[in-house]
Amino acid sequence: MNPPRTDARRHHDPATRGFASDNYAGAHPEVLAALAVANGGHQIAYGEDDYTAHLQQVIRGHFGAGAEAFPVFNGTGANVVALQSVTDRWGAVICAESAHINVDEGGAPEKVAGIKLLTVPTPDGKLTPELIDRQAFGWEDEHRAMPQVVSLAQNTELGTLYTPDEIRAIVEHAHGLGMLVHLDGARIANAAASLDVPMRTFTNAVGVDILSLGGTKNGALFGEAVVVLNHDAVRHMKHLRKLSMQLASKMRFVSVQLEALLAKDLWLRNARHANEMAQRLAEGVRAVHGVEILYPVQANAVFARLPHDAAERLQKRFRFYFWDEAAGDVRWMCAFDTTEDDVDAFVAALKEEMAR
Amino acid sequence: MNPPRTDARRHHDPATRGFASDNYAGAHPEVLAALAVANGGHQIAYGEDDYTAHLQQVIRGHFGAGAEAFPVFNGTGANVVALQSVTDRWGAVICAESAHINVDEGGAPEKVAGIKLLTVPTPDGKLTPELIDRQAFGWEDEHRAMPQVVSLAQNTELGTLYTPDEIRAIVEHAHGLGMLVHLDGARIANAAASLDVPMRTFTNAVGVDILSLGGTKNGALFGEAVVVLNHDAVRHMKHLRKLSMQLASKMRFVSVQLEALLAKDLWLRNARHANEMAQRLAEGVRAVHGVEILYPVQANAVFARLPHDAAERLQKRFRFYFWDEAAGDVRWMCAFDTTEDDVDAFVAALKEEMAR
Amino acid sequence: MNPPRTDARRHHDPATRGFASDNYAGAHPEVLAALAVANGGHQIAYGEDDYTAHLQQVIRGHFGAGAEAFPVFNGTGANVVALQSVTDRWGAVICAESAHINVDEGGAPEKVAGIKLLTVPTPDGKLTPELIDRQAFGWEDEHRAMPQVVSLAQNTELGTLYTPDEIRAIVEHAHGLGMLVHLDGARIANAAASLDVPMRTFTNAVGVDILSLGGTKNGALFGEAVVVLNHDAVRHMKHLRKLSMQLASKMRFVSVQLEALLAKDLWLRNARHANEMAQRLAEGVRAVHGVEILYPVQANAVFARLPHDAAERLQKRFRFYFWDEAAGDVRWMCAFDTTEDDVDAFVAALKEEMAR
Amino acid sequence: MNPPRTDARRHHDPATRGFASDNYAGAHPEVLAALAVANGGHQIAYGEDDYTAHLQQVIRGHFGAGAEAFPVFNGTGANVVALQSVTDRWGAVICAESAHINVDEGGAPEKVAGIKLLTVPTPDGKLTPELIDRQAFGWEDEHRAMPQVVSLAQNTELGTLYTPDEIRAIVEHAHGLGMLVHLDGARIANAAASLDVPMRTFTNAVGVDILSLGGTKNGALFGEAVVVLNHDAVRHMKHLRKLSMQLASKMRFVSVQLEALLAKDLWLRNARHANEMAQRLAEGVRAVHGVEILYPVQANAVFARLPHDAAERLQKRFRFYFWDEAAGDVRWMCAFDTTEDDVDAFVAALKEEMAR
Repeated sequence: MNPPRTDARRHHDPATRGFASDNYAGAHPEVLAALAVANGGHQIAYGEDDYTAHLQQVIRGHFGAGAEAFPVFNGTGANVVALQSVTDRWGAVICAESAHINVDEGGAPEKVAGIKLLTVPTPDGKLTPELIDRQAFGWEDEHRAMPQVVSLAQNTELGTLYTPDEIRAIVEHAHGLGMLVHLDGARIANAAASLDVPMRTFTNAVGVDILSLGGTKNGALFGEAVVVLNHDAVRHMKHLRKLSMQLASKMRFVSVQLEALLAKDLWLRNARHANEMAQRLAEGVRAVHGVEILYPVQANAVFARLPHDAAERLQKRFRFYFWDEAAGDVRWMCAFDTTEDDVDAFVAALKEEMAR
Repeated sequence: MNPPRTDARRHHDPATRGFASDNYAGAHPEVLAALAVANGGHQIAYGEDDYTAHLQQVIRGHFGAGAEAFPVFNGTGANVVALQSVTDRWGAVICAESAHINVDEGGAPEKVAGIKLLTVPTPDGKLTPELIDRQAFGWEDEHRAMPQVVSLAQNTELGTLYTPDEIRAIVEHAHGLGMLVHLDGARIANAAASLDVPMRTFTNAVGVDILSLGGTKNGALFGEAVVVLNHDAVRHMKHLRKLSMQLASKMRFVSVQLEALLAKDLWLRNARHANEMAQRLAEGVRAVHGVEILYPVQANAVFARLPHDAAERLQKRFRFYFWDEAAGDVRWMCAFDTTEDDVDAFVAALKEEMAR
Repeated sequence: MNPPRTDARRHHDPATRGFASDNYAGAHPEVLAALAVANGGHQIAYGEDDYTAHLQQVIRGHFGAGAEAFPVFNGTGANVVALQSVTDRWGAVICAESAHINVDEGGAPEKVAGIKLLTVPTPDGKLTPELIDRQAFGWEDEHRAMPQVVSLAQNTELGTLYTPDEIRAIVEHAHGLGMLVHLDGARIANAAASLDVPMRTFTNAVGVDILSLGGTKNGALFGEAVVVLNHDAVRHMKHLRKLSMQLASKMRFVSVQLEALLAKDLWLRNARHANEMAQRLAEGVRAVHGVEILYPVQANAVFARLPHDAAERLQKRFRFYFWDEAAGDVRWMCAFDTTEDDVDAFVAALKEEMAR
Repeated sequence: MNPPRTDARRHHDPATRGFASDNYAGAHPEVLAALAVANGGHQIAYGEDDYTAHLQQVIRGHFGAGAEAFPVFNGTGANVVALQSVTDRWGAVICAESAHINVDEGGAPEKVAGIKLLTVPTPDGKLTPELIDRQAFGWEDEHRAMPQVVSLAQNTELGTLYTPDEIRAIVEHAHGLGMLVHLDGARIANAAASLDVPMRTFTNAVGVDILSLGGTKNGALFGEAVVVLNHDAVRHMKHLRKLSMQLASKMRFVSVQLEALLAKDLWLRNARHANEMAQRLAEGVRAVHGVEILYPVQANAVFARLPHDAAERLQKRFRFYFWDEAAGDVRWMCAFDTTEDDVDAFVAALKEEMAR
């Protein structure tokens, strides 16, 4: 069969893969195939299409009858729309200092939404009730932006995981103080796969109010969803999504990707595979003298410390990022398409560079 | 051949089409095919991929050596990123009262970017130097947001077109007053097709400084680009795009769609077809007694006035929108996939409903 | 008696007065004297002082038991704090195109608070239910900033007045549509004096929800108050005032000025006098051939049209502003300290310049 | 002589003073007297008056020929206007975690101006080049708000001082990295008095670009100024001040207060006195067993740690604030009107409560 006609040309080598980011991977072929399913004919724009309607069923299957998904374009968009929906103009959000919303979104929460982030240093990217208390005060004091929300990430930016009980404790603490809880689930699939529980177990089952559900890192071309779990907490999400420039006109193409991932088990297959590759990588790395793994490897990321020059030599062979260049800390990410051979070749290269 | 596996199911009838919006159409098959070309392997995320690099060549082919494209997700995003890049915190933007940025973006320019829109009523959606002058004053007066930019749309929200000379006159007027010019080209392909000139003829050739280049309505699944034509006017576009939540991680999938449209002539084929269908529709409508066409039909939209009850009956057969329900004004849009049969069936139905 | 010691020197001629603005006037001596009353000793900062507490009694005397005043620095601050308190992030405010919040606040509503203003042209600066309806629609449509508030000014920017019944009709209309009503009372004293009714008659008595109460133009050095009339409509005013940079640390000095004006009748004496001077001025102007008075003179402003060259010659003798320079429209304002001699001399000068 | 007539009544005891804040003090009588000097007649509003013009001379006397003052209402306003003027939409500001702009302005920098604060923990409220480097990176990375400004406070929120050389080193470091330097001088007079140098010595003489110059805590009723020291760095301050709702209509009354303070030596007399009282207080406290002074006492604040119950008993006799209630840390502030007797009585009371 001839490939379908297009004027676009291949400009890259599809056999090249690295360990820089799960965003470096492309889309899973089953997700790509879903786009063709949704194509053709006219569908109401801006979210009233049949795919977005069906997505609600899929989401309710995962998160229960009260859940509602609002597809958006990207993770920053999901987080900023979600956080706006649970804060007032005078509100602040408590998060880990290392949180993605604090360090990696170009200041979007502050700049687009005027949200002040009240940050807490953490040993491993995880908040606790005690850590939250360092910023959870002063609700009556107008000199302080009002702490209204705790934002967690599962898994965290450092590849670590909360147990469902840990999240429950945080939620109960936050609710007890009159705050709501947002969970940044850009990699929620990896978390669920690692914990071997349904996603609901550590979200609405333990009281999380609103969720950023990631699709892109899980194998979509693009596309995430804000999932409202506690409808009493939010209103007018559609207006917020639109004014935040996250409303897709041909939304069917976002929703059908999420359906492809979530309707059966593609989300889980992809996440499990990425996690397994990270475990294989960690195992390989542990056998290399002079390389230290920094955090528990609980999802698809391995953070490690190694001599700076070895890291630089390795970067010439495989693309990855320094996390803290001064300290020699690096991040190695596995994706749904990382292969065992990729990992083994990488570990072999690491050994070589460490041995020089 | 079996279709590629996916868990997503078809939920809609791909044979159904209406006249509600060019956003109701899906993606052109050649655009869809392009996604597979770009898939596979790892590519640097956030815009350093080979497809985004190649897109720059394509864009330079259309707009000249000085042009640079910054792919974004949607039209609101393109406009708000572009307008931020040419305004200061104290700036205002002059536009037609009927402009999309004023009436159809949920207040995003004001809410995300604090941009005050200084609007001017127009007879047909088109600005002129004289109309601009109604708001172009007070640059030294701090009590007034400073007019820094004129924003045009080509074609306009009312389906009308500027000639290149008209845009040149506006640009010269604006530049003479120290203002820059933004062009909202959500339907720039339809405009170029209708004028039968290259896109550059009415953009950088006549001095437009920055452009929102539309892909979605032209046949993409999603995806637009801010195209900087005057590099002296803007800086740090990448930061603005990121903080505005318009930075795609897997940007190759935006860029390759634009490549599929723009590398050869798909953009023009799609636009010409949609325009021709609008002409066919207008011709058919003109033959129906009691229906008035409101504006020159210069692109892919027909605005018409007809009795409210006839319009409502027609809406039960074909989906379209009232533009001004009180006046009985409606908008009928053609898309790249509108067929001659669609148009003829619609005109026949219109005749029937007008004859009741 | 020697004047109290100060290193500040007099730099101006206190005998010079013009017709440019009631903001050109200084402070009423009784207001100045009030500052000394409040001075000395320590008082809790940021609004918990005894003067702000007492001001509440004064305000309740004017507006009833449910009213609460939040002193702020200036009129822009009062309006933007008030409007924030009654809009959501997705909200819009309907106002006259000529409204101060639209034309004279440097874009602060948009830039500080992201509020989209939905403006309506008016013949005389006054809204009506019918005029409001031109913008009052689309509450369910996320593509449009949601109309949540109608903002009136009493008196208007054009020196015209609403009757209490007119405001009641607007309020009922707005409330019926689910919107709240803000009244910009930068010159509310002039309005009450002209209508010869208490301020409450055209505010809470007819259902206005929130009020910007002006002090500066009424004879204060500076100082206004947001007065909440409908407590169900707003919350967390203190946080909004603080984050809007309108919280005075030594608030006693704002509150005592408002007390000086409002405790007895200084507010009314000042306003009546300014209004009477405007009537005397209008009477004089009407006798001058070739000068047209543009709007009903209902407060302390006279808007007139006269030949541009005559206006320019007159400006060399008395300071005042063109309102629409192209049309030859000017604004002449009277203040609490305008004298009959000032008016007579101005009218005489006008006659001379018109006779040249 | 009879006092001037006013309807305002005295509601407080002018003999009561505490140690809660220099904002609890009223205005210095010489400042109050200055208001009468500026009163009477008409003066151009919004800053074109003769007092604001004269203030420029006074400011140039202190800061050199290149300095220009923009009077504003309060310290939050001064800081947020100043920071907006030296940041782009994508900018961030590096400051101490304990900085007033971070902890005590209700989130105004984020909410009004979208400025992300990049905070650094400090031992004593003071930044150093090394501490700045913890946040000074990533200028090319659009995923991070761009560090464009370092904001210092002199004296700091913890009552500590930078030497001029320390500020010079910070400025050179910041400038070397392409950043500008803002100095929050809410208590700059206390700093100059303590260092016994002119204010310019640690501002423009060492390269500070922009300054928030405090008046309120120094004895004004209200009023601060943004002082631009490096004109190349900022533009359109007037627009920024207006849109930030910090533009006083009757600006003469702000400017004349600053003149009263700054024209001769009232600013210095007030600051010296407050500092001396803090020294007397610290001396007294040091003699009380069980009370620990936390930071060097270099201005008008004493931070101390004492048993919580003793602090609470003492609060019933003199008003002051806990700084960190959990730790038992308190702040005692002296003002221009604090007397030796006040201090001695307070120390005596402290002794009594510690002895219980």
